[in-house]
Amino acid sequence: MKKKRVYLDYAATTPVDPRVIKSMRPFWSEKFGNTVSLHSFGREAKAALENSRKKIADLIKAKSSEIVFTCSATESNNLALKGVVESSGKKHIVISSIEHPCIMNSAEWLKGQGVEITKVSVDKYGFVNPLDVEKAITKNTALVSVIHASNEIGAIEPIKEIGKICRAKGVPFHTDAAQTFGKLLIDVNKMNIDLLTACSHKIYGPKGAACLFIRQGVGLNPILHGGGQEFGIRSSSVNVSAIVGFAKAAELAEKEMESENRRLISLRDKIISRALRIKGAYLTGHSEKRLPNSASFYFSFVEGESIILHLDLAGIASSTGSACSSQKLEPSHVLLAIGLKPEQAHGSLRVSLGRFTTEQEVDYFLKVLPKVIAKLRKISPLK
Amino acid sequence: MKKKRVYLDYAATTPVDPRVIKSMRPFWSEKFGNTVSLHSFGREAKAALENSRKKIADLIKAKSSEIVFTCSATESNNLALKGVVESSGKKHIVISSIEHPCIMNSAEWLKGQGVEITKVSVDKYGFVNPLDVEKAITKNTALVSVIHASNEIGAIEPIKEIGKICRAKGVPFHTDAAQTFGKLLIDVNKMNIDLLTACSHKIYGPKGAACLFIRQGVGLNPILHGGGQEFGIRSSSVNVSAIVGFAKAAELAEKEMESENRRLISLRDKIISRALRIKGAYLTGHSEKRLPNSASFYFSFVEGESIILHLDLAGIASSTGSACSSQKLEPSHVLLAIGLKPEQAHGSLRVSLGRFTTEQEVDYFLKVLPKVIAKLRKISPLK
Repeated sequence: MKKKRVYLDYAATTPVDPRVIKSMRPFWSEKFGNTVSLHSFGREAKAALENSRKKIADLIKAKSSEIVFTCSATESNNLALKGVVESSGKKHIVISSIEHPCIMNSAEWLKGQGVEITKVSVDKYGFVNPLDVEKAITKNTALVSVIHASNEIGAIEPIKEIGKICRAKGVPFHTDAAQTFGKLLIDVNKMNIDLLTACSHKIYGPKGAACLFIRQGVGLNPILHGGGQEFGIRSSSVNVSAIVGFAKAAELAEKEMESENRRLISLRDKIISRALRIKGAYLTGHSEKRLPNSASFYFSFVEGESIILHLDLAGIASSTGSACSSQKLEPSHVLLAIGLKPEQAHGSLRVSLGRFTTEQEVDYFLKVLPKVIAKLRKISPLK
Repeated sequence: MKKKRVYLDYAATTPVDPRVIKSMRPFWSEKFGNTVSLHSFGREAKAALENSRKKIADLIKAKSSEIVFTCSATESNNLALKGVVESSGKKHIVISSIEHPCIMNSAEWLKGQGVEITKVSVDKYGFVNPLDVEKAITKNTALVSVIHASNEIGAIEPIKEIGKICRAKGVPFHTDAAQTFGKLLIDVNKMNIDLLTACSHKIYGPKGAACLFIRQGVGLNPILHGGGQEFGIRSSSVNVSAIVGFAKAAELAEKEMESENRRLISLRDKIISRALRIKGAYLTGHSEKRLPNSASFYFSFVEGESIILHLDLAGIASSTGSACSSQKLEPSHVLLAIGLKPEQAHGSLRVSLGRFTTEQEVDYFLKVLPKVIAKLRKISPLK
């Protein structure tokens, strides 16, 4: 009998949708040209690139010329922070205390270059107070960057309000939308966003494609230098098939967003209400103002790593903290930022749902979880 | 009738080999996990990654732990130059005058950071004299970087000898092998190479995968900061399917290298000898010490851009200078470096052959080329 496998880690990465694979297929061995080549192979690749750029731009109400393709959200976030700081010549940035490691570590690198970093704190749900951002901005502030929704606790930040403050202060505002693009409606104009990171492999597109929206007029220096692709901002031979897949994935996500979110919120809320029946189980993040597909908890007297591994033995894939840091054993900076003690943060679990998640899978998880927690409590040295 | 299409621009990019696509397939929608996830989906992705790393390492006689995957040769070259300079704290590098734009422009960026750049000149064939490298090295030299073979004129550089000098001087030696990996045998130990850039989409692998070999003990700082993937040197969710395809492509290229090179050299030499029968046609680079798949010329009194476009009208894809700069109208720095006058450099043509090139295609090209040159000469204001 084939082993049961239930994937509840869609926030880490998603399978590629078969419709996306189909859209990419022509660009491997037929329309495989280099976008900068002058001949017909090059021109058809370039046309596919520009068509994809327009699709992505339209979805967030940007102009095509404001979309720069990169290979990952990490690269887009590095480019936003380092590129704007270098271009501005200013020596201060403001970020939240619950950013993804790639923002945290880019900021840390900038610190080594003499840039001052202000980390705005969050409340117990993980929400940034826009007034704290306002207070943090100085005349020397090059950029404000606040994540759209937390990859760990699902908290959706008041981006529009933060953007409004940044606009009034004349400071460019970046948001990392890796977890929200294709899941929540985004309008960069109405939401006062100047730079935005979006990513393919979280929305059933291939790995290896992402983009950075850069509002016209915002100064930004490249971090990869070379042939001058992507308006001179991001050199590298362009990965056309991945970008075509990214655009197709974004289009599908947009089209199915409303009905899919209804379905996911219902499954998510079932998970939240049932899991909280377990003694010593606590929700992290807000119960409603959170990503439609993400439920996150901590369980007292158990270790998150042990929960993951025991769920895995039952065929269930889940996460403790962000996938990017889940091989580290330090407690998540996000969970500490919302006020958890290290031992509480160590007991964290994130389950994230997606397009292929069924009610049966959720029920199976809800059957297994209490047993795993009970078993771990029994052998726990912490209790 | 379907239009005839003959692709002679394999140095710009290649179609993906169907065997490579087959190897990638499981990693889109089945084994799609994030390599850093602790569960079974993550572990099978990680296993595929490490298996690919070992394959690539073995091919160049490196250790697995010395291979860092990136998304492009451009990124690998940026990482080599900026990463080694930042780590060393030294303020001087040596490069050749015929490097790819991504080395040239990374060096230019470093110059803006206060790093001195010495560009070693080349002879009329495009060859670097190792003694010139020796003379250029100072106590403050962080790195020497010389391209393995020129993307424009096919010149194969005396890498082993240059590496020997660098080793004696205690300076790390990097080579950009984007055009040679999978086409020429590479042994990083015998060839005294400390850092090497290799790339997937030039050898029938997918776009979006490349690597940097970094010899154990060579200090190098990351340029992308984040989750700490790739030994902490290159953060980003790992593009497993592309890397699996890259490794498969490398494996195939190695296996078929000898017989394929014989075939390509024969076609290449046919092109060279026939094209040189055209009046006012000149070979660029050396007639023998050149890439097996590349023939490059200049034609007096015509413009390269016009040759490309007229060949394209006949269904033939070729290039003038490197693909990355072929939308610019400045003369190629490589052709100027081998002593061509700007008007000669403007008349350049590169044809590059590959796995799917047939003798019939070559014959068709050789039938069309003289007609195109004759036609352009007729209307040329230059003659």
